[in-house]
Amino acid sequence: MSGFAAVDVIRAKRDGGVLSDAQIDWVVDAYTRGQVADEQMSALAMAILLRGMTGPEIARWTAAMIASGERLDLSGVGRPTVDKHSTGGVGDKITLPLTPLVAACGAAVPQLSGRGLGHTGGTLDKLEAIPGWRARLSNDEFIAQLRDIGAVICAAGEGLAPADRKLYALRDVTGTVEAIPLIASSIMSKKIAEGTGALVLDVKVGSGAFMTSVDDARELARTMVELGTAHGVNTVALLTDMSTPLGLTVGNAVEVAESVEVLAGGGPADVVELTLALAREMLVAAGLPDADPAAALRDGRAMDSWRAMIRAQGGDPDAPMATANEIEVVRADRDGFVDTMDAYAIGIAAWRLGAGRARKEDPVSAAAGVVLHKKPGDPVRAGEPLLELRADDAARIPAARADADRAVTISATPPSRTPLVIDRIA
Amino acid sequence: MSGFAAVDVIRAKRDGGVLSDAQIDWVVDAYTRGQVADEQMSALAMAILLRGMTGPEIARWTAAMIASGERLDLSGVGRPTVDKHSTGGVGDKITLPLTPLVAACGAAVPQLSGRGLGHTGGTLDKLEAIPGWRARLSNDEFIAQLRDIGAVICAAGEGLAPADRKLYALRDVTGTVEAIPLIASSIMSKKIAEGTGALVLDVKVGSGAFMTSVDDARELARTMVELGTAHGVNTVALLTDMSTPLGLTVGNAVEVAESVEVLAGGGPADVVELTLALAREMLVAAGLPDADPAAALRDGRAMDSWRAMIRAQGGDPDAPMATANEIEVVRADRDGFVDTMDAYAIGIAAWRLGAGRARKEDPVSAAAGVVLHKKPGDPVRAGEPLLELRADDAARIPAARADADRAVTISATPPSRTPLVIDRIA
Repeated sequence: MSGFAAVDVIRAKRDGGVLSDAQIDWVVDAYTRGQVADEQMSALAMAILLRGMTGPEIARWTAAMIASGERLDLSGVGRPTVDKHSTGGVGDKITLPLTPLVAACGAAVPQLSGRGLGHTGGTLDKLEAIPGWRARLSNDEFIAQLRDIGAVICAAGEGLAPADRKLYALRDVTGTVEAIPLIASSIMSKKIAEGTGALVLDVKVGSGAFMTSVDDARELARTMVELGTAHGVNTVALLTDMSTPLGLTVGNAVEVAESVEVLAGGGPADVVELTLALAREMLVAAGLPDADPAAALRDGRAMDSWRAMIRAQGGDPDAPMATANEIEVVRADRDGFVDTMDAYAIGIAAWRLGAGRARKEDPVSAAAGVVLHKKPGDPVRAGEPLLELRADDAARIPAARADADRAVTISATPPSRTPLVIDRIA
Repeated sequence: MSGFAAVDVIRAKRDGGVLSDAQIDWVVDAYTRGQVADEQMSALAMAILLRGMTGPEIARWTAAMIASGERLDLSGVGRPTVDKHSTGGVGDKITLPLTPLVAACGAAVPQLSGRGLGHTGGTLDKLEAIPGWRARLSNDEFIAQLRDIGAVICAAGEGLAPADRKLYALRDVTGTVEAIPLIASSIMSKKIAEGTGALVLDVKVGSGAFMTSVDDARELARTMVELGTAHGVNTVALLTDMSTPLGLTVGNAVEVAESVEVLAGGGPADVVELTLALAREMLVAAGLPDADPAAALRDGRAMDSWRAMIRAQGGDPDAPMATANEIEVVRADRDGFVDTMDAYAIGIAAWRLGAGRARKEDPVSAAAGVVLHKKPGDPVRAGEPLLELRADDAARIPAARADADRAVTISATPPSRTPLVIDRIA
């Protein structure tokens, strides 16, 4: 386990070779312990991005990242466990209604989430718009809440996959995020270490996602399904469209409010459709194929589960959330049909308004964001509102406005509809 | 000049793009000032290694590295200036006899040299085997010695191409040494900044060189000749063989002693041949085509120049140098002809014996090294000495012995001879 030189491992991958199990175990462990320097790991990450990894290399790399920390044992929670992971999108609040919904149907959902960086929002940032809610739980609190309520959304503990925590931060500043082996091993090492019995992956494709091609997204999905299966986690992936934001809200408080609408039996059709599609996959994967999540939305069980989950983490589900001081309305400049509402441009606009962060240590605004009045396919008349831009500070509006203007196109005829769920990989 | 994000520059090169002049200027300057982090530059270096750079990108990168520091003005030395650079090899002591030889013929040679790292030796390490000799000169001392004696071999000052200094150390630990754009810009930025009027490049090819293929070496040579020419430095390159060590010595004191033999009109044929070939190129490039370096070796002028050069930097050219406590002789195991004496394996053996360093801060042994008793093509009888391994410490012998045994092959018939000078690129 010792005696490798970091440079030899980097060179091997740089020259297109396959890393040995011993090399992978050593480099991940030595990096976690600070014996391989950041500048060495970033060179290796770039070599991995450009040269790729074989299936067995990815599997070993993932196993080494899991082995860098603890692995939780959820066998004591008394229900089948199933988690969901989204590769990240714009307006992707699905975790918020989905977690209590699946819990209401009899499974336990151990949802360890992250914060937003760049144009995609973070689930923890959204929930922190709820007064009093806290993201950090101890492992004991996490397991107790999972047993008692069945639904937890919280920050991943420091003890899970510390190698990934360190590598993730490095990749973000070194242009090495978009490597399928590194994305897959990062996601799966955390999910496997958290101890879930089953996992449903929502792999996003489109301008607002990390993967803009269906082929890349499918390769990522296959890689992750194989990794989960190899570690005994019943894993399924849906490829879903992220060319347009999900729902009518992009931000923090606005997305919580929209999620509560869904839990109350209403909400935008696309958010409801994707929430139910993922809930059905999760319940089947958890061995509960007869559960009826649509009924749980209608009859209030999902809402009860949400309120219990928020209260258990100190949040007040009835407290008013922050509202924005500054609102600018973007209006249609002609009659026609909304052709595109580009997810990436709207994500960037929301980020500029204050909903996201440029650096990990930046705060986010609870109230900032974008509210959509129309979606692609909707008819529109000149002067009608298309979007609202919301911010705490008027100075943030003009740059966001430029992105918002770029995001929307209007055409004389309605666009063809694209399906929300593109493919399923099991 | 501001406002780039390092990640955007890395991504552009990672995805096969061409960096703009402004991006290159910014990233080199920001790295020198510590605003681009080591882990970002190493990822960029790996992307450059795997994606390459266009000619204009390499030219701009080189110019940015020159601009990171001072550029010396040698117009006051009163003679034409011409320098030589070798890409590094095993037993490559050529700088030692060549510098005073060319100075004896009327040119001034501003030879800023480096230390050894890995299996190739460093000129400064070799000269430090001479008691009293010091490698560090101020810019004023450097120019005065150039004016008075015409020959200087010393360490490059901190002020020349500081961007390269920082990047060179980084590349060494991140597996990004072997990128032609980075090698070429590193060498040429220092040579152009030192202010030489002409430059002859000795680009090594073979197992003991960084470039093991003639095609790669030719590309590197062409790239450097173009860079020099574009900056007004009259530049020529020779491609020379480095499959076998140069001369009969590999180490520090042993290479100085062999260089003095050449300056005394003797020495191994290959060292003399390459010294004269490079001297002739340098003198022509300096506008002194009628100089006769072979005569200067015969008549003692080159030796006088050597002694003056060593004395000017505090060295005693007559003082005895360190000798090794431990000597092991490697003998032929059969009759035949020496077929190969692999430069890389012998370089590694000398390094293991203590002649080189594993880390920049390590000391080197003056006395350690390898002395060759035979060269490829020589007839040999079983039991005759092939090599001597010399070290201060017997514990260093066994590992070096394994490399030495690997280095030598004996065949029944003499090998075909390969030329020392393979090509000339102007």
